[in-house]
Amino acid sequence: MNLQELIARIAALDAAAMQAAASRQDRLTKPRASLGRLEDLSVQIAGITGNPMPRLEKKAVFVMAGDHGVVEEGVSAYPQDVTRQMVLNFVQGGAAINVFARQAGARVVVVDMGVASDLPADSGVIIRKIGRGTADLAKGPAMTREQAVASILAGAQVVEEHIAQGLDIIATGDMGIGNTTPSTAIAAVLCELPVESIVGRGTGVDDDGLRRKQSAIRQGLELNHPDRRDGLDVLAKVGGFEIGGLAGAILAAAAHRKPVVIDGFISTAAALVAVCLAPAARDYMIAAHVSQEQGHRAMLNWLRLEPLLDLRMRLGEGTGAVLAMHVVDAACRALTDMATFDEAGVSEKDD
Amino acid sequence: MNLQELIARIAALDAAAMQAAASRQDRLTKPRASLGRLEDLSVQIAGITGNPMPRLEKKAVFVMAGDHGVVEEGVSAYPQDVTRQMVLNFVQGGAAINVFARQAGARVVVVDMGVASDLPADSGVIIRKIGRGTADLAKGPAMTREQAVASILAGAQVVEEHIAQGLDIIATGDMGIGNTTPSTAIAAVLCELPVESIVGRGTGVDDDGLRRKQSAIRQGLELNHPDRRDGLDVLAKVGGFEIGGLAGAILAAAAHRKPVVIDGFISTAAALVAVCLAPAARDYMIAAHVSQEQGHRAMLNWLRLEPLLDLRMRLGEGTGAVLAMHVVDAACRALTDMATFDEAGVSEKDD
Repeated sequence: MNLQELIARIAALDAAAMQAAASRQDRLTKPRASLGRLEDLSVQIAGITGNPMPRLEKKAVFVMAGDHGVVEEGVSAYPQDVTRQMVLNFVQGGAAINVFARQAGARVVVVDMGVASDLPADSGVIIRKIGRGTADLAKGPAMTREQAVASILAGAQVVEEHIAQGLDIIATGDMGIGNTTPSTAIAAVLCELPVESIVGRGTGVDDDGLRRKQSAIRQGLELNHPDRRDGLDVLAKVGGFEIGGLAGAILAAAAHRKPVVIDGFISTAAALVAVCLAPAARDYMIAAHVSQEQGHRAMLNWLRLEPLLDLRMRLGEGTGAVLAMHVVDAACRALTDMATFDEAGVSEKDD
Repeated sequence: MNLQELIARIAALDAAAMQAAASRQDRLTKPRASLGRLEDLSVQIAGITGNPMPRLEKKAVFVMAGDHGVVEEGVSAYPQDVTRQMVLNFVQGGAAINVFARQAGARVVVVDMGVASDLPADSGVIIRKIGRGTADLAKGPAMTREQAVASILAGAQVVEEHIAQGLDIIATGDMGIGNTTPSTAIAAVLCELPVESIVGRGTGVDDDGLRRKQSAIRQGLELNHPDRRDGLDVLAKVGGFEIGGLAGAILAAAAHRKPVVIDGFISTAAALVAVCLAPAARDYMIAAHVSQEQGHRAMLNWLRLEPLLDLRMRLGEGTGAVLAMHVVDAACRALTDMATFDEAGVSEKDD
């Protein structure tokens, strides 16, 4: 499969399924629209799946990991090796995403898209390494255009393999020391926002670190001239391998008519790339939460996505997305499992 | 047990357990504070339970039902018999609260605190009827002071019986055609807010209905002079039997050191009564969500509670509370189940 074929498979939502779901919502034993956003969500998922009575039983979160040359500019509060260490924590089940995924009944699929060092072969991590970390975006392109395409296709392929085994909904997650820097650069280009309005502290850099991060991004944008009409160019010039992988994961979900729950800042940068490449992919997205990372709200606004949760989280890994899966699941269950007024013998509103 | 004994049992949170939980949060494999409100929640629950590693396994939602004489003023869009019909829907498992409770693994405990008609004896509803609906609060007191006390103690007793069987967290829920009217009256008195700023459409009354609702509340407040320093007087003059039952449920949870997730508008009115009677009960409360019902946000602000969810819901029944239980559960699981930096061999932040 090539990228054009993947994009071409993404179709519009199923209007008939949406109509049927909306009409059933109005017959369920509750005041009309009283389940608020859950009703809209259930209609969206009917449209995504083409099923007016959708069930979300098989869930997975794809946690894509990569390293970033830009850490040389001193943009992160953590040493680069933490990417590898946390990937091992994921496969050992000790990270926040593991805990939340166990609660939500979701598989955790950990993918090495470009960690700087090598992981043990038997670790349980899926190895799709495009490179050993990107190049420093402040000094030149983060990767080649070929690597950008390869990262998207690799991410898409991992998701397609899991869809083939049975999957009803996917969540996106990320790990990569320094990756709020490329994500901010992507958002600055694609949403046409001033860098200083969206640059944040990531895992917690101090004021000096924040200044270094801002300069690195500005320098990277001036030097590389990413073309905002060309998602591949933006990803290649100022992106990351795990961001490309996540953009591919999102495109694959949309191509296979599966809802995709977008996590926080990094995942939303990937969503921006995906929508730049395939605008129709937007309708398959559910924004899980608004991150504490400055700039995230503006990115969601640009995507016209309203986050489900606002819990002041800023961890990544897919933690917000997996938490939001409970809400998405509840939305579908209400649609399919509630009794109608007729079935329950309940009187309707006086009109 | 009498009401004074119940109130006297409510103690302060356990500071040592909170300190231990907060200190563990800082050793878990994530940037400090990156789980945002979930970290605060886990610390609160440690303080509530006195356990620095709390687990929330056994869950229940108490759905208390009652009817309201004030429906004679034309304040609701639904006929009064819907209260009884929905109570039967609850025990048959077809309502939104049943669907959400099944998802969350919570028992649904349905209590008739004062439905106007009689329910079948074998229906599965717990019968604690204080009266067959309240009197019309626009024409006189909704109930006697003795009934107010009885409703609180009955609600508390039902919860205590379930705690005795094993229960780690409770959620509140309500059913009662017309019950946004007494709830608004309670909020107007206890939060000292103008009626017109907090009166809303409930299940969906039209403009005329809204005007009738506003007049009924104003008339009730002028006629009955509820004393805002006396929670029992407010409950008796302008309250409802299920609201009293829920206030009792909240007090019982606090007295037994169990977290109590407060649902929407009606449950928050009950929380106002509970806090008026026992200010220490506030610390045991978790505000599930902000309802679409106008006025709810102001009530939560008065209680200094920040809602976890904002999904434009306005259904009641405990639906918001049971949805929020997933978040509360996740908060405790992160605290107890995540690996520490030492355990996972992950490097900490450069300082």
